Amino acid sequence: MSTFSTRLSEAIQRSGTGLCVGLDPRWELLPRKLRESVAIFPPDQKAVMAVWEFCRRVLRLVRPIVGVIKAQAAFFELLGPRGMEVLAAVLKEAKQLGFITILDAKRGDIASTATAYAQAAFSGNTIDRATYPVWDVDALTVHPYLGADAIEPFVETAKTHDRGVFILVRTSNPGAGLFQDLDCGGKPLYEHVAAAVSRWNAETVDDTGLGAVGAVVGATQPRELRKLRELLPQVWFLVPGYGTQGGTAADVRAAFRPDGLGAIVNSSRGVTFSFHPDDPEWESKIVVAAKLAAEELRI
Amino acid sequence: MSTFSTRLSEAIQRSGTGLCVGLDPRWELLPRKLRESVAIFPPDQKAVMAVWEFCRRVLRLVRPIVGVIKAQAAFFELLGPRGMEVLAAVLKEAKQLGFITILDAKRGDIASTATAYAQAAFSGNTIDRATYPVWDVDALTVHPYLGADAIEPFVETAKTHDRGVFILVRTSNPGAGLFQDLDCGGKPLYEHVAAAVSRWNAETVDDTGLGAVGAVVGATQPRELRKLRELLPQVWFLVPGYGTQGGTAADVRAAFRPDGLGAIVNSSRGVTFSFHPDDPEWESKIVVAAKLAAEELRI
Repeated sequence: MSTFSTRLSEAIQRSGTGLCVGLDPRWELLPRKLRESVAIFPPDQKAVMAVWEFCRRVLRLVRPIVGVIKAQAAFFELLGPRGMEVLAAVLKEAKQLGFITILDAKRGDIASTATAYAQAAFSGNTIDRATYPVWDVDALTVHPYLGADAIEPFVETAKTHDRGVFILVRTSNPGAGLFQDLDCGGKPLYEHVAAAVSRWNAETVDDTGLGAVGAVVGATQPRELRKLRELLPQVWFLVPGYGTQGGTAADVRAAFRPDGLGAIVNSSRGVTFSFHPDDPEWESKIVVAAKLAAEELRI
Repeated sequence: MSTFSTRLSEAIQRSGTGLCVGLDPRWELLPRKLRESVAIFPPDQKAVMAVWEFCRRVLRLVRPIVGVIKAQAAFFELLGPRGMEVLAAVLKEAKQLGFITILDAKRGDIASTATAYAQAAFSGNTIDRATYPVWDVDALTVHPYLGADAIEPFVETAKTHDRGVFILVRTSNPGAGLFQDLDCGGKPLYEHVAAAVSRWNAETVDDTGLGAVGAVVGATQPRELRKLRELLPQVWFLVPGYGTQGGTAADVRAAFRPDGLGAIVNSSRGVTFSFHPDDPEWESKIVVAAKLAAEELRI
């Protein structure tokens, strides 16, 4: 397998856009027709079946438009263990369809626990010398707060298996600054996290000029985005907050290198819930929204 | 339902110890006999079955000794969606056996995503006006890095449903200081997080003198533990790192209030893997280890 950065670069170049489509499925936002089609199931299974069908269709609709998808673990977890089964199936399906897959689970723990999360994401579970994949994704989002020996198991497992890690650096939410912007010896906390990301990333940089340890940087912070791009020239950015959260194409331009690589910009609800639940033409609405967002982020 | 702090206080007073037993099940550490008993299953299901049986037995073994258990989500996640099913079953079983249950999943996200995690932990998933529990635990561990509007959905959902949240403040791992100890305007980052915990906790304090927004503070940091106890007199501490990670009973004494409340000290491997896998007497080894740890942390 080629490196994470090479595969990601190829996926972006093939699709011609830095857009990543996010899957944040929520029962109450699904198309009414699709919800009706699963009415035969008991209520809790209904949501699981409908979410599976919805994600499966979204993947097929956006496949000609984007090369990268991101699944938000929380919305599958809320459906219970069977929702996690759907998450695994969606990720497998996406991989088979040729997408680069990102699991946005924001994991973070220490020592052997961090290793367990990293194995679930990347290398699988080994039982009596046989290995069973769990999420088997190209990249995972990770919390930095626990420090060096909490991040390293993720980085090491990712490196060994040619996967990537996106560490939360400066996020897109209005309250992000409470800790991230604290002045720590003349620079904000998030710049200390950025410096650590840069160190972890350094030894993974390949001939794309980019590496396997990326940073999550919100679209709603164009100034910080520009500054971080300068500080971290070899680091991939995963940029959430585009569209419904308020970030614009102009805001995120600074995240990209001049050649259009170096960043993927996620849009979830703006693409996948771009229709009214009663609209029978919901599939074409998704295609239109995806094409529009892809065009705005054309490389 | 009484408040989280009241239920937790009662569980500690009933058992007479501040010990919490952690479930971090790993196939390769399970008793050989138990692993052999599931040989009929295909290999990946084998681990799921054995982990279920092991956790079920541990719960019964420690029930006369402790009042609080903590499940580490990572080791169940590594077993895939069926492992998550076992996690749900273990938590339900523990609840039925009368334990206070803590899900150590270290979740953290923003806005509606944080709400989804909080609902999964506490209030359940609502589909067409019916609600389905997911983890249904008494408390959840949460990452602070994303800031105010990332923590609030957890705190609000916990408050509404009389549950608790433990926010990572100063952890027990050797590399914890990388960010947590950074000097931010004259005090370390973790004290800023502690101050925020104190604010969120303040309006949840009940007649136990403690509230529903707790702090994770590692057993390996006795100095920080003492200082944080002074700064946060009304905050419950969840103290990991006891036993195998190096923290001693003397180290953690400072976490408790004079009446023995205010902290729960977790031991996972030190209790549940206190035997050699070949030892047929593994169950009595667990009982002995649990009794010893409970005694060391007698209130």
